[in-house]
Amino acid sequence: ARLVATYLALMPAAEAQEIKSLIKYEEETAGSLMATEYLAVKAGEKVRDVLAQVKKQAEEAESITYIYVVQSDNRLLGVVSLRDLLTHPDEMTIDTITNTRVISVKAGDDQKDVAQVVANYNFFSIPVTDDTGHLLGIITVDDIVDVLDEEAVEEYSGLAAVNVADTDDTAWHSALKRLPWLLGLLVLGMVSVAMVASFEDTIRQAPILAAFITIIGGTAGNAGTQSLALAVRHFGAGTEKSGWKNLFSEILAAAVVAVVTGLVLALVVFVWKSNDGLALAVGLSLAAAVLVSAVLSHLVPAFLNKINLDPAVVNGPLVQTICDWVAILIYFGIAQAMLDQFIGK
Amino acid sequence: ARLVATYLALMPAAEAQEIKSLIKYEEETAGSLMATEYLAVKAGEKVRDVLAQVKKQAEEAESITYIYVVQSDNRLLGVVSLRDLLTHPDEMTIDTITNTRVISVKAGDDQKDVAQVVANYNFFSIPVTDDTGHLLGIITVDDIVDVLDEEAVEEYSGLAAVNVADTDDTAWHSALKRLPWLLGLLVLGMVSVAMVASFEDTIRQAPILAAFITIIGGTAGNAGTQSLALAVRHFGAGTEKSGWKNLFSEILAAAVVAVVTGLVLALVVFVWKSNDGLALAVGLSLAAAVLVSAVLSHLVPAFLNKINLDPAVVNGPLVQTICDWVAILIYFGIAQAMLDQFIGK
Repeated sequence: ARLVATYLALMPAAEAQEIKSLIKYEEETAGSLMATEYLAVKAGEKVRDVLAQVKKQAEEAESITYIYVVQSDNRLLGVVSLRDLLTHPDEMTIDTITNTRVISVKAGDDQKDVAQVVANYNFFSIPVTDDTGHLLGIITVDDIVDVLDEEAVEEYSGLAAVNVADTDDTAWHSALKRLPWLLGLLVLGMVSVAMVASFEDTIRQAPILAAFITIIGGTAGNAGTQSLALAVRHFGAGTEKSGWKNLFSEILAAAVVAVVTGLVLALVVFVWKSNDGLALAVGLSLAAAVLVSAVLSHLVPAFLNKINLDPAVVNGPLVQTICDWVAILIYFGIAQAMLDQFIGK
Repeated sequence: ARLVATYLALMPAAEAQEIKSLIKYEEETAGSLMATEYLAVKAGEKVRDVLAQVKKQAEEAESITYIYVVQSDNRLLGVVSLRDLLTHPDEMTIDTITNTRVISVKAGDDQKDVAQVVANYNFFSIPVTDDTGHLLGIITVDDIVDVLDEEAVEEYSGLAAVNVADTDDTAWHSALKRLPWLLGLLVLGMVSVAMVASFEDTIRQAPILAAFITIIGGTAGNAGTQSLALAVRHFGAGTEKSGWKNLFSEILAAAVVAVVTGLVLALVVFVWKSNDGLALAVGLSLAAAVLVSAVLSHLVPAFLNKINLDPAVVNGPLVQTICDWVAILIYFGIAQAMLDQFIGK
């Protein structure tokens, strides 16, 4: 959808061509997505004349649902729907049926933000302008459907550390797609192994400590995955509030989650083992690991968004691995410090 | 978009009303999504007459992009675009410009499948018929955008075990939303704790075993998450092949992934600890845990899809927890059986 512009009675073809060739748009922007075959007319024209122009240009235009009304320098003034043209008398000027509260996007806008606008307003198409309001093209909703699909697949793939776009792979290709992240995470997982191994003596003294590695690391990882998903969705949806306000809100939510899960685990361990020292050490470790994991998993995508990278590149399993590191260090740190209070009980 | 039908010169209003009241559509089907204000004309009419009808009905119709051509009993014959109407002579009959290869959906079709059809073909709207081909309504692409958004949010929320739809929650509401799954998973995680605790004696004899719990459980969980995401996306996208073929393909892919990751871990452990027995036990455990986890994580959503439930209800963290169980049992089972071959080395 990047062909030659058809301006109706607006400017010589050569000039349009010149403008077009001057402008290059970055990938994933409104500019790269737009079609330049839109219908535009000047204010003050009669319904009959506009209809005649629409008939003449209908074959080439990307969409005839809307006709844009522009100034002589192609600055966007408003929009008339074909529906309104068809239902109003031929002799009327279009000014009376022109909607001047037209919502447009800028050529440099991110396609994700454009998709959100179109989805929120249920538009069939949206005009694209340059920074000074000159009409450059239109984006139709069928292209937005593709963008939404693409972005959803990207987010979802990120959360699972595998590209889910092609569902018709052979077993061999499917395996090759999954291996890179799995192997990378395996190498990072060796850090966890080395961390636990460095606490071998502590485990020798209290083998029961080994039993809680999975639940503390796992719960921290789950809390981290939730934070990550909420952050990616939040920044992806473009409903960004102030970064500090977000962070503060996330810390509060993470703290509530941390305290509740920590208390529950401490209680269960106390009932099961009648060992208050162990219950305290395990509960405290879980609460601390959950809090740090959740906040970290919010901060990383928030930071990526801040520096204009896609927050969806942080994947779920990577977050799980990092949460494991956090959990192991906190857990064995606390357990070692409190060893005297629960050993041999 | 569920108002009274406007059939153009087709049937008396009372009859239309009667048909409408007889039909109730289930949620998330094409029928529940469609608008009944479409434009329909009989074959054989002149372009001029159809245009006149369009002008008369334009105000009420949900979309005037397409005019549907029907038999006298309202059976769908084809479609004419408004664009074609506008660019053809008034005296021509519409039969020559009617496209009879019109793609339609059935009222009972799942909205997810309808969205996929509209997205794949880049339609602006699609007609909905009953089982015998009678035109019931149309679904426009702006409604499809909402469906795609909804389904993407559902899948993504499932993978993270948290509803990501509302990004404007207070910290307190956000915490309350995350807690149910976290607490449920914490309780299930206690099963892992009990499992490891039952191997306390084994760990006492070889504390180094504790170091590999996280990496084996974590890698199995990562492989499971990938399988889950691919399966949910696969079944969600409606590109389903035979269930047995899918399962066989998944087992093959999982086997390749299992062998490669198992070999890599065995090699690393061998180099690090110079203990061939430990390397073999750990590598074998990882391979077996990855294989079982990946296949299980494919089977559960496949089964849910088979019995017409949404596979996206299986969430990522739940899969991680179940993979932990699998990994712990396999790992300590193998480690205990091979204890003589690596202990004290």
